[in-house]
Amino acid sequence: MAKDKKVEQITDMEVDFAQWYTDICRKAELVEYASVKGFTILRPYGYAIWENMQRIMDGEFKKTGHVNVAMPVLIPESLLKKEGELVQGFAPEVAWVTHGGSEELEERLAFRPTSETMFCDHWSRVLHSYRELPMLYNQWCSVIRWEKTTRPFLRSREFWWQEGHTIHETAEEARAETEQQLNCYADFFEKVLAIPVVRGRKTDKEKFAGAEATYTVECLMKDHKALQGATSHYFGDKFSRAYDVTFTGRDNKLQYPFQTSWGSTTRMIGAVIMAHGDNNGLVLPPAIAPIQVIVLPVAQHKPGVLEAANALVERLTAAGLRVKIDDSDNSMGWKCAQYEMKGVPLRVEIGPRDMENGQCVLVRRNDGEKTVVALDTLESAVAQQLQLVHDGMFEKAKKNLDEHVFAASSIEEAKELQEKNGGFIKTMWCGDLQCELDMKEKAGMSSRCIPFEQEKLGEVCACCGKPAKHMIYWGVAY
Amino acid sequence: MAKDKKVEQITDMEVDFAQWYTDICRKAELVEYASVKGFTILRPYGYAIWENMQRIMDGEFKKTGHVNVAMPVLIPESLLKKEGELVQGFAPEVAWVTHGGSEELEERLAFRPTSETMFCDHWSRVLHSYRELPMLYNQWCSVIRWEKTTRPFLRSREFWWQEGHTIHETAEEARAETEQQLNCYADFFEKVLAIPVVRGRKTDKEKFAGAEATYTVECLMKDHKALQGATSHYFGDKFSRAYDVTFTGRDNKLQYPFQTSWGSTTRMIGAVIMAHGDNNGLVLPPAIAPIQVIVLPVAQHKPGVLEAANALVERLTAAGLRVKIDDSDNSMGWKCAQYEMKGVPLRVEIGPRDMENGQCVLVRRNDGEKTVVALDTLESAVAQQLQLVHDGMFEKAKKNLDEHVFAASSIEEAKELQEKNGGFIKTMWCGDLQCELDMKEKAGMSSRCIPFEQEKLGEVCACCGKPAKHMIYWGVAY
Repeated sequence: MAKDKKVEQITDMEVDFAQWYTDICRKAELVEYASVKGFTILRPYGYAIWENMQRIMDGEFKKTGHVNVAMPVLIPESLLKKEGELVQGFAPEVAWVTHGGSEELEERLAFRPTSETMFCDHWSRVLHSYRELPMLYNQWCSVIRWEKTTRPFLRSREFWWQEGHTIHETAEEARAETEQQLNCYADFFEKVLAIPVVRGRKTDKEKFAGAEATYTVECLMKDHKALQGATSHYFGDKFSRAYDVTFTGRDNKLQYPFQTSWGSTTRMIGAVIMAHGDNNGLVLPPAIAPIQVIVLPVAQHKPGVLEAANALVERLTAAGLRVKIDDSDNSMGWKCAQYEMKGVPLRVEIGPRDMENGQCVLVRRNDGEKTVVALDTLESAVAQQLQLVHDGMFEKAKKNLDEHVFAASSIEEAKELQEKNGGFIKTMWCGDLQCELDMKEKAGMSSRCIPFEQEKLGEVCACCGKPAKHMIYWGVAY
Repeated sequence: MAKDKKVEQITDMEVDFAQWYTDICRKAELVEYASVKGFTILRPYGYAIWENMQRIMDGEFKKTGHVNVAMPVLIPESLLKKEGELVQGFAPEVAWVTHGGSEELEERLAFRPTSETMFCDHWSRVLHSYRELPMLYNQWCSVIRWEKTTRPFLRSREFWWQEGHTIHETAEEARAETEQQLNCYADFFEKVLAIPVVRGRKTDKEKFAGAEATYTVECLMKDHKALQGATSHYFGDKFSRAYDVTFTGRDNKLQYPFQTSWGSTTRMIGAVIMAHGDNNGLVLPPAIAPIQVIVLPVAQHKPGVLEAANALVERLTAAGLRVKIDDSDNSMGWKCAQYEMKGVPLRVEIGPRDMENGQCVLVRRNDGEKTVVALDTLESAVAQQLQLVHDGMFEKAKKNLDEHVFAASSIEEAKELQEKNGGFIKTMWCGDLQCELDMKEKAGMSSRCIPFEQEKLGEVCACCGKPAKHMIYWGVAY
């Protein structure tokens, strides 16, 4: 049975990018649809990627003093409604619990779409003195937003995320936290996921409901569409005032703390697929790959081959790597295709001839490059190749980004450039909402961010011709 | 302000055990009530304990080949109802989502009370061949059960847990899995939580809704009440049949796999409090303590003391321990009481005189024992003391258990023993439900388990006088 196993075929990305994406999600066994419309199941391989992401991010959060907590998943409607902008932003997407057991509830409860309200409610009861500040909290959980159209990882009614929530004595400290966490995300994208990002601020139209400022890391996918990677919000003392969170300050007077929140989600797995994948399947950055090295014995029925292959597994495992062997009776062709589909960064082949020569063959997933290495240098050679995989992936994604940022000086030009090339279109902008709406209507693009690294492309807004305030990035976004 | 800080007082356990328990939950900052009735918040210190539990258990699960997944949190009512016993068991406690955004749903969705149905539904779509078996899945998440009365950790409407779900080719393999996971729990309780357990099988009355057999680890608290620690269930092919989960067997025919599930929850934190705590607060087993060692500088304003104390922190951190220093301006008395309340297993004191003598003082939380150790043996001395803390805690809890198991030969005697001593009352039992109901009604005790280690206390059932089948443990349970 297994010998007849077919290599799974996926749609070429050039033919149908959306179908290619869905094919990878399914064929690499990352997710499966659930019987509840709009909900997905994270299968073992997909969840293992998420676990690796979680472990690395959680470690970074803790290095800067953040601690994890667990807040209730249900929020009373009255509590959710205390801050007007937040509830307006999320109400259309909330799932409501109305019955507990056989009884109808007196007040309906929202399945959390985000937890600012719960954190504020908690802080209003436990915070007393400036000595207890800052409170640097984070929680790993799932949230529900009742989206109309859904796609695995990118948009689903339930998704898994972390939401950081902090309160500080001063506005400066809270702003510094917002910035620190945005940089933490940027580093994670670039150094762990091998995805280069553009850091910037969201416009008022695109910012988080209720936030004073939202900062974002924006990435570019292989189809040259934009994807919002993660966001970090500064709230000032707006929620503190709405939820009556106070503390006794150094001056012995009651004060409102300043607040931030920041989040990243399983959508990052979607970003990895679309930033790095190819027509053979997933391509995973080594840092988050559930299997970093797959060892394939060649002519495994020959004496000593399996033993030699298992010895490699043992050595690499001892070196701290996530390694597997496939000694099944599937064909070599099937195995190669299978682990390419799964995006395993490095393949190690060893057969009778390699054994004679005291060597093995390393094959990189990202560019197919083969290297023959002496067995006694195995550990260092594999570590080096994994680094090259990461670097090669980052460089390729960086080239894609760099080659797809185009300057325009009118909506028409922006539209033409987007239709021809995709990518980010950069223009000057006056700061008015109406120009954003015009760009959306006429060129089909939303503002992605006002990059921290500003360039002066001209004096006037590309949309209305009035004096420009910022250089802004536009794009067609996931 | 801080200098005036009062040592928090808690109720003595001999005065009011329930209040003592609640006091610890609050004063040790483990949990806080939420504004949603019956829901609790896991605060940083409480969550850190749960994180340590999770990390250790998750590692054990993975050693035996289990992988994590994430299933949707909402279950369509029709799906939940496919297996009759399960839905009867859980329906009265289900929270129902009826609206998504502004629309009423066509079918209401249950917030998962447990996820057998979702796993079966998923397997019915992805399982094909015996070659894919076993599937050894686990998920860490929260569940909701709409309880009438709630208590922190022990019974709350939302709680956090892991639920393992596996399917196997044969009944034997599934039974072996059920047993393996029960032993995994027993080891966790004894070797990590320092809580001795009784392993056994639940009666039909007490078993999990829909299970063929439920196995349990039962523990005894300091008030001599029983607490169910964790359970492991064998389902046979009952759910497979109900949810149409099939695979092509070795004989090329369609077959139903055999299933297990097993779970443990944040209630284990409640067990730790009540098995080990004392009138000074929490007493934590070193393996799960967020802070394993607290370093307190004595006369910290004297030259060199803070440096010496910080040097100890550095050395112990380098040795892989979770260590903190308290160099605040609170009094030594307040600090000692504070870290006793928090259950920190070991306190290290160092002051000018200690420095002169090249020594420091180690104080064990569980029994207050002080040891003076030479600074150059710090790491080994601390490791040894932490082991002694664990061993001392286990021995004390074991003594409590051993001294509170009493044999009875009638319901009246059982009742008298329970009222006088608490603990487990062991009797012979015929196996009939009516005798369980009689024991509950007349002596206020439920059956805890039929221990694997059977003793022959007599020939006849203590309740009805008919021939006995098993020796059974009864108790008043949390």
